[in-house]
Amino acid sequence: MSTQQRAILVIGIGAGDPDHLTLQAVKAIRRADVFFIVGKGPHKASLTDLRHRMIEEHAEGSYRVVEVEDPSRDRGAMGRSDYTAAVQDWRERRGEIFERAMREEMTAGETGAFLVWGDPSLYDSTLGILGDIEDRGALLVGVEVIPGITSVASLTARHRIPLNQVGRPVHITPARRLAEVGQNDDGDIVVMLDAHESFTQVAGNDVWIYWGAYLGTPDELLVAGPLHEVSDRIRQVRAEARERHGWIMDTYLLRITDGRGSPRRAETDGSGGHAAP
Amino acid sequence: MSTQQRAILVIGIGAGDPDHLTLQAVKAIRRADVFFIVGKGPHKASLTDLRHRMIEEHAEGSYRVVEVEDPSRDRGAMGRSDYTAAVQDWRERRGEIFERAMREEMTAGETGAFLVWGDPSLYDSTLGILGDIEDRGALLVGVEVIPGITSVASLTARHRIPLNQVGRPVHITPARRLAEVGQNDDGDIVVMLDAHESFTQVAGNDVWIYWGAYLGTPDELLVAGPLHEVSDRIRQVRAEARERHGWIMDTYLLRITDGRGSPRRAETDGSGGHAAP
Repeated sequence: MSTQQRAILVIGIGAGDPDHLTLQAVKAIRRADVFFIVGKGPHKASLTDLRHRMIEEHAEGSYRVVEVEDPSRDRGAMGRSDYTAAVQDWRERRGEIFERAMREEMTAGETGAFLVWGDPSLYDSTLGILGDIEDRGALLVGVEVIPGITSVASLTARHRIPLNQVGRPVHITPARRLAEVGQNDDGDIVVMLDAHESFTQVAGNDVWIYWGAYLGTPDELLVAGPLHEVSDRIRQVRAEARERHGWIMDTYLLRITDGRGSPRRAETDGSGGHAAP
Repeated sequence: MSTQQRAILVIGIGAGDPDHLTLQAVKAIRRADVFFIVGKGPHKASLTDLRHRMIEEHAEGSYRVVEVEDPSRDRGAMGRSDYTAAVQDWRERRGEIFERAMREEMTAGETGAFLVWGDPSLYDSTLGILGDIEDRGALLVGVEVIPGITSVASLTARHRIPLNQVGRPVHITPARRLAEVGQNDDGDIVVMLDAHESFTQVAGNDVWIYWGAYLGTPDELLVAGPLHEVSDRIRQVRAEARERHGWIMDTYLLRITDGRGSPRRAETDGSGGHAAP
């Protein structure tokens, strides 16, 4: 590694449970000199709080915590090219902020760390932004990635179900692409980033939904059942939770049952069968 | 929980690195009275060895380790219905063996544990088999699932790449379904369980491959690049490794680049750019 290079750890911290941290992540936290915490606004303060608590519990020696401002993002853009352009614009501004923070708040030879929700590879911008900075050549950055428990693995674990059916594929899609993805085969579909309850647009009596919010936290909510039966309940649970917390982070699996009805008894009993109290 | 119920922990242990264990998994290992280790034959002894080492390092108090025989599986079945039938038959026989082991080797009130490679939800049979046992009603089983680091998250971490491109879906498929899955959209494709080098059947100059074997272990191998350029190299590396170890476990991501050539410089430099020494 060049002596001018900033060593940056991108650490997956799992999907909400402090015990989702891996031993590798704990060791990485111990190695860091500077933690960059990206502010998400007051409505997601609990996400930022978890990062602070993990650092307090696991960091060793002297370290600094740097709060990094998050640029606002145009969430009105709904067309695909509009959307990509809006994300690109937001990523560039975020990149400038990250670069300035890494340049001003740490020295070459030190190790910086970003704590990333879930796994850094899955619908998170940190790796892409650090790659952009490398590409511009403005700052030498040596990135190491520590994988984390995904919200997908957390969802299936809490529902005690396999993600895939035997021999079949699985599709993971942003909600905005749900209408196209996986419509031509028998694979199950995980929907991420759904701000608009896209599951209400899915037709068919052969679809089961396994829904979860605030996974891994004390506020966790789970609902599972035939989509046409539980869709309204999820909307209600979701609205109440959003009202109570001021924000919601949820994900779900849509399982095609080939018209056999229940995909499996054991997949819907227990904790998966009702919203947590 | 019924007093007659067997409490069973299905613990994801990550994709090869002992430090992929989560704090939650370590705590679960400490709770277990009996560990069921499924034999995989001599060629996969190193997988079984890792489980034994994890138990020795993390288990507390008195515990027992029970080696469970793995039924042989008809791997000649290639058609989809043949394949599903062969898997079902194998699962049933495995279920009988699991049930007998849980009945004879642990008492109600004790806690048993299965240590599962990667994450228990992703192309692993343990949850399905335990579900079948619950469905038959032959033995009361209370299952708790501890999510793990998937081989997919491990692959992308080692290549330091996002799994998805901005706003696009991701498909995860068994190799035998590669010809159909994700051919109609711009999503990237992760291929699992590929015994027949299916990547050699993929055409197009717009496809990049990020390949990895023995991920997270000292034997890890990584190759990345345009598929048509590195395909032969992967076949060669794969053949040599298989010869050396007697077995191979690999996975890969196929990324559609829209004809722009390199998906990103930063995604192919460094450890991802060549086979590890």
